[in-house]
Amino acid sequence: MLTRLARGSRALSTRSYPSYVKIVEVGPRDGLQNEKTVVSTADKVTLINMLSDAGLPVVEATSFVSPKWVPQMGDNSDVMQQIKRKEGVFYPVLTPNLMGFDAAVKVHAQEVAIFGAASESFSRKNINCSIEESLERFQPVCEKAKSLGIRVRGYVSCVLGCPYEGPIDPAVVAKVAKTLLDMGCYEISLGDTIGIGTPGSTLEMLRATKEVVPVDQLAVHFHDTYGQALANILVALQEGVSVVDSAVAGLGGCPYAKGASGNVATEDVVYMLHGLGIETGVDLAKVMEAGSFISTVLDRPTSSKAARALQKPLASKL
Amino acid sequence: MLTRLARGSRALSTRSYPSYVKIVEVGPRDGLQNEKTVVSTADKVTLINMLSDAGLPVVEATSFVSPKWVPQMGDNSDVMQQIKRKEGVFYPVLTPNLMGFDAAVKVHAQEVAIFGAASESFSRKNINCSIEESLERFQPVCEKAKSLGIRVRGYVSCVLGCPYEGPIDPAVVAKVAKTLLDMGCYEISLGDTIGIGTPGSTLEMLRATKEVVPVDQLAVHFHDTYGQALANILVALQEGVSVVDSAVAGLGGCPYAKGASGNVATEDVVYMLHGLGIETGVDLAKVMEAGSFISTVLDRPTSSKAARALQKPLASKL
Repeated sequence: MLTRLARGSRALSTRSYPSYVKIVEVGPRDGLQNEKTVVSTADKVTLINMLSDAGLPVVEATSFVSPKWVPQMGDNSDVMQQIKRKEGVFYPVLTPNLMGFDAAVKVHAQEVAIFGAASESFSRKNINCSIEESLERFQPVCEKAKSLGIRVRGYVSCVLGCPYEGPIDPAVVAKVAKTLLDMGCYEISLGDTIGIGTPGSTLEMLRATKEVVPVDQLAVHFHDTYGQALANILVALQEGVSVVDSAVAGLGGCPYAKGASGNVATEDVVYMLHGLGIETGVDLAKVMEAGSFISTVLDRPTSSKAARALQKPLASKL
Repeated sequence: MLTRLARGSRALSTRSYPSYVKIVEVGPRDGLQNEKTVVSTADKVTLINMLSDAGLPVVEATSFVSPKWVPQMGDNSDVMQQIKRKEGVFYPVLTPNLMGFDAAVKVHAQEVAIFGAASESFSRKNINCSIEESLERFQPVCEKAKSLGIRVRGYVSCVLGCPYEGPIDPAVVAKVAKTLLDMGCYEISLGDTIGIGTPGSTLEMLRATKEVVPVDQLAVHFHDTYGQALANILVALQEGVSVVDSAVAGLGGCPYAKGASGNVATEDVVYMLHGLGIETGVDLAKVMEAGSFISTVLDRPTSSKAARALQKPLASKL
């Protein structure tokens, strides 16, 4: 059925969309880090293995931040050692400093990620330094990664809005993205951390950023807080972006909570992309199984509407 | 804050989007008809008045279908007589036959709506006749409406998929839409009744339909079952469609139910449109109040993500 639905639109959609989109699964890290329920190492490992088995080319696995700050990721080394690494799949990990980087390398991380905010207020209130200072701190990580042949991914947060200062100037996003590129990041993920953007602000931000970073090195990272994530992704695809971050089951915020701010659900993204005739290499049914597994672990329903609908008897007939 | 967010993108968005979009609020009819909780006439009237007061130019008020089939709308005449009609606002009502039409006229309906499916199986299984036969039955309604100067809106259901036959041929949608146009409908609303479409199938269906019906007489009507509604609307706007159906609070399906199939939420649509710098004449805060009111009546949380997010203290600071 899914194939039948996708087939018809292929001819039209290839006109203005990428033919292939790389999905970066961030559920096990960005997702679980923001869930209240503590997930066991064994369940994290199972989840990551299910996701790579579903054909996801990149699965962000964990974070080497101090467990004082992010206790949910305190088992980072165990996770990295216990997952079954699938050939060709990357398992990036967050590394805020050299100590984290060294710990990640020790357990054979082949990709790390660093991050900067596009909002001065956010940067100052959260890590007590300016955007520029925060980026400088990553310099040694980037240099060491380069010398070891380890890929570095860069994140820019608050690209469409900040809880303290509101809308963000696209020129600032472009500048931070360019700095990360110049530091050696092979890919820059632009994150609407509070999910407040619309296709209007997304377009403006992307156009500014594309002027200084090649579009094939840009990724988009949306949270679905205001329900705009898929529409924003669509605009990004039309602008030539072909890397999309998402989290299975929309991990990262309870679907029932007021102002839930989970990541856009991988299942919903895959459903849309396949419907546009875009290849992802991802098996939607298997992603749904992974989503079902982790939702059971967290004891809450999935945040993915596509997964909910496809699980229904009616839809399964289609 | 909402104004600040919208402002920045105006210059960019006017390139390829309509400058004004008419939102047709279908919550009191299409929404409430599909809710399990029975809503009192007084609450329906309050809801409709709140919606017109929020600046919505069209509020579908009720249905003059036999109460045997749709008991939720059995108070149709009372609703029409008790609402406070705002100048310039239209309050269409569904009229499946002359009996319903006459009853609607008696309580001064100035717009009625008729409907046909784009799926033969759906038509046969639901009303036991072919698409063509079902449309012929509306002929007398259209003729009488014309003689009385009453506007007729046409709905096409199942335009992107049918629970019985799966994907729908865009040529069939185009044909049904053209038939409704020829029968005298001033506007044709294309409905993805089961919410299964993606921007890919939406684009294909719209391009086929635009060939036979002028795009300024087309409306789109999405349910958010698979989470695709806003992305589909975005594509429709890019194709020149400037009329969008939606329901306050995403009425028509419980947000927590498996495979919930509510209409796309008016709040989410307005949030996106304003973010694109598109005028709607709608006051988002007032729509949210109406959504809050009806959600309390139904004793369930809103299905609108934008409403949930904007109600949060964090977001209200923005």
